Amino acid sequence: MTNHEDAAETPQAAYYAVIFTSLRSKQDNGYEETARRMLALASRQPGFLSVESARDKDGFGITVSYWKDLDAIKAWQKNIEHMEAQILGREQWYEFYNVRICKVEKEYGFPADKL
Amino acid sequence: MTNHEDAAETPQAAYYAVIFTSLRSKQDNGYEETARRMLALASRQPGFLSVESARDKDGFGITVSYWKDLDAIKAWQKNIEHMEAQILGREQWYEFYNVRICKVEKEYGFPADKL
Repeated sequence: MTNHEDAAETPQAAYYAVIFTSLRSKQDNGYEETARRMLALASRQPGFLSVESARDKDGFGITVSYWKDLDAIKAWQKNIEHMEAQILGREQWYEFYNVRICKVEKEYGFPADKL
Repeated sequence: MTNHEDAAETPQAAYYAVIFTSLRSKQDNGYEETARRMLALASRQPGFLSVESARDKDGFGITVSYWKDLDAIKAWQKNIEHMEAQILGREQWYEFYNVRICKVEKEYGFPADKL
């Protein structure tokens, strides 16, 4: 169940989450297009579950992608197109970013049937 | 190390993350003040490590708080003032929210010394 298009839909725990926090630089140079392409590409990877994202007006953002297991995350990290985008990200698009790989152990929501 | 005031500072994994995703309603009724008070209160709880947050202009937001262990998270969930705020959140401030409790197993960042 989901009642907002931005919210991730995920199965019952346990599964994995990648918390990606970042600060955008002032440079664009194709960022939006690449971000869209990476989202589409990620969503076709084996083991991809869902993704949700929010970015403040000052450029600080949090994207959380959800995955079936660690192997799915590792495979996505090593995807060639994704690796190319990561290089551009470090060179141009992000002042900094952090990646945290987590095992989702429990979840609940409001309204109660949300998750 | 951190190079942005919004970014969470955390110790080496493993520790815990609470991913709170939400859609704000149109109602205010003291939301900002309570949000600030809850942030200050959370940061004084035993086992609290850090917090980071981003909200889109359409009201969809992700807040990730980091904690030493599950006991610290459980204690914060049962804090009386926090429970009162949760009730107001469901009644007035949020269209929906999801909470995911996760064990952070690995992390890395850019620039390399960031995490």
